[in-house]
Amino acid sequence: MPPDIFFAGPGLDRADALRGQPDEIAALAASPTARQLEWEFGLPAIDEQGRLRWGPVTDPELFLGLDGDEPRFSVIGPEAGDLRAQFNLLGHLSATEAPVFAAATSLASWHRRHGFCASCGAPSEIHRGGWGRRCTRCGTEHFPRVDPVVIMLAEHEGRVLLGRQPRFPPQRYSALAGFVEVGESLEAAVARELFEEAGVRAHSVRYVGSQPWPFPSSLMVACTALVDDPALVVDTTELEDARWFTRDDVAAALAGEDAASFVAPPPFAIAHSLLAHWLAA
Amino acid sequence: MPPDIFFAGPGLDRADALRGQPDEIAALAASPTARQLEWEFGLPAIDEQGRLRWGPVTDPELFLGLDGDEPRFSVIGPEAGDLRAQFNLLGHLSATEAPVFAAATSLASWHRRHGFCASCGAPSEIHRGGWGRRCTRCGTEHFPRVDPVVIMLAEHEGRVLLGRQPRFPPQRYSALAGFVEVGESLEAAVARELFEEAGVRAHSVRYVGSQPWPFPSSLMVACTALVDDPALVVDTTELEDARWFTRDDVAAALAGEDAASFVAPPPFAIAHSLLAHWLAA
Repeated sequence: MPPDIFFAGPGLDRADALRGQPDEIAALAASPTARQLEWEFGLPAIDEQGRLRWGPVTDPELFLGLDGDEPRFSVIGPEAGDLRAQFNLLGHLSATEAPVFAAATSLASWHRRHGFCASCGAPSEIHRGGWGRRCTRCGTEHFPRVDPVVIMLAEHEGRVLLGRQPRFPPQRYSALAGFVEVGESLEAAVARELFEEAGVRAHSVRYVGSQPWPFPSSLMVACTALVDDPALVVDTTELEDARWFTRDDVAAALAGEDAASFVAPPPFAIAHSLLAHWLAA
Repeated sequence: MPPDIFFAGPGLDRADALRGQPDEIAALAASPTARQLEWEFGLPAIDEQGRLRWGPVTDPELFLGLDGDEPRFSVIGPEAGDLRAQFNLLGHLSATEAPVFAAATSLASWHRRHGFCASCGAPSEIHRGGWGRRCTRCGTEHFPRVDPVVIMLAEHEGRVLLGRQPRFPPQRYSALAGFVEVGESLEAAVARELFEEAGVRAHSVRYVGSQPWPFPSSLMVACTALVDDPALVVDTTELEDARWFTRDDVAAALAGEDAASFVAPPPFAIAHSLLAHWLAA
């Protein structure tokens, strides 16, 4: 049974069949039940109940989909300021709204950074209700990037390997992670990243769950793997430290105990879900 | 236990730490054990034993990695001609060489189609031994795309749902598939695609395995899911047909029997591995 993972729910009906029909999208935008996502601090706005804030449709750049039969739109919001500060907001965001937050955030971010055709260099324009861009000169279609990332717990004799990046808050340790590359399976990426970052040879990779992570557009794929030789060679260009933690260490950290040997990642991070899954297994 | 999947092996040591060091890469390219991948018909060349063909280093555009301690390079090969015809070659490619074929094919294809900066429109140049491009004007770094795709078997009372695209060879049926979108987990993408393409509501999504698919740069993620109501509403803009097949149907098709009710996808396709996994479960 995969764990509960923030951002991973179903979200809106994306109504893919409508995206290619600009007239229908315009009619939806003019409907009385249509709403447009509000933005604040460079992210979709969240109210005090943790719900997304919706307002009247003024600039329906992105067709997010249907909530029941009610159309939902967004603008290409401004760039986020200090993402670290915004992360505090995520702790308040309702889990059922999180997938919509993720889709709008990633989509807007992609448009902001892809105003030109990578194939010929000419300006591109919004296409398919915001789910693509098309070159104004050569006509090439471009689609939003989704970048798969593996994030994994290597296990050795009942302990798990966690690492610490220099940018982490004090005492925080988390699962190692890295982008999947072309020509690589998820399983091969897990083994490569564990060897690159920690010098361990892993096998028996198992999938646990996945999460869209909208900063800007990762698809986090959480796995476990086994390691026979626990000797570590830490890549200090990536990690400040990496070490093996016991089940008791992990239980104390997830419970937020003051005496815990490390501070766990927050509940909206898939690393948290992965640790909880491992502890329960 | 995940199934054997073509293209999914470890491949070369990608030696990520060397990519940022142009002087070291130049020295590797000049070493007597360095080899450069040959290209033929717009794809890496395969010899009669199913092995990749390597020659002297003349134009080390892409640093593929190390085979033991022997450096391996590739050019940005020409665009493939008729991919359908090239697919016949894959049946001859050695499984241990397939991951290298996949990485070189995807990487070259990405460079061919990304000569300009999507952020400002200026020309970009090869960067990090071929594992990125950098804008010559604004300096933005770009990295090769990996596009995650879900491919899945929906199951209902011991039968599986397979579909047929108009471009398939005669009698071929295969697992339904589609690109994962931003703001979407793998599990959500499986459910969305099954509903969009076949009108079925799926649950209990389970991961089976993954495969890099280098035409041009997909990451295929194979899953199973359960369906309670088998009534189909086929999206005829995507599929020519979709229907439920029994275990006997699948066994006959995988065995290549003349009397089989459909023709299975070829062994190098993850759909084949997924069907074999389902049948063995």
